[in-house]
Amino acid sequence: MAVETARARTLSHVDPAEVPLQTALDALADPVRRSILRDLATHADWSRACGTFDLPVKKATASHHFAVLRSAGLIEQRDEGARRLNRLRRTEFEKSFPGLLSATIDRAD
Amino acid sequence: MAVETARARTLSHVDPAEVPLQTALDALADPVRRSILRDLATHADWSRACGTFDLPVKKATASHHFAVLRSAGLIEQRDEGARRLNRLRRTEFEKSFPGLLSATIDRAD
Repeated sequence: MAVETARARTLSHVDPAEVPLQTALDALADPVRRSILRDLATHADWSRACGTFDLPVKKATASHHFAVLRSAGLIEQRDEGARRLNRLRRTEFEKSFPGLLSATIDRAD
Repeated sequence: MAVETARARTLSHVDPAEVPLQTALDALADPVRRSILRDLATHADWSRACGTFDLPVKKATASHHFAVLRSAGLIEQRDEGARRLNRLRRTEFEKSFPGLLSATIDRAD
């Protein structure tokens, strides 16, 4: 448990209300990150672990993409044992950037 | 007139329906380009010439930004004498990317 807690502590989250529009757009302007968001949008909150996404990039790059999404207030993450679970912050993000997420992920690339 | 026509011919436009989402997002993910779009959104079509925008960049860079916006189906341009006039393609772009332009420019950065 101590290890889990220490790892969880490294996960910093940003309130979408504090995210600049530029940061939000930069986060959304990447096809791998959009595929992560679309995946999360079609699954229940906390049901998808980072390792289970089928992404066309190496693990370190995937971790970077998840971190960018977290910094932009688009996803929330928490560790459960060895798994890092994810949740799309659809409602909070929508409140700060009305229509932006839907316009970006509710369609194919 | 011949010179004007020749210059106008160099202006290629893209149907927003043919623009990939990535291209649209890349075009919108720049503060100078968003300021151009916001400016056009608050002025009548064809009333703003490129040289009249108050942009924090050099002329060549400004021209590049206008070209990027044109390639993304966001603006239409036409030459009138020495002036290059602009129009925001709000309706056409909205049809291809519902909500995206509004979510990006109907707010401050």
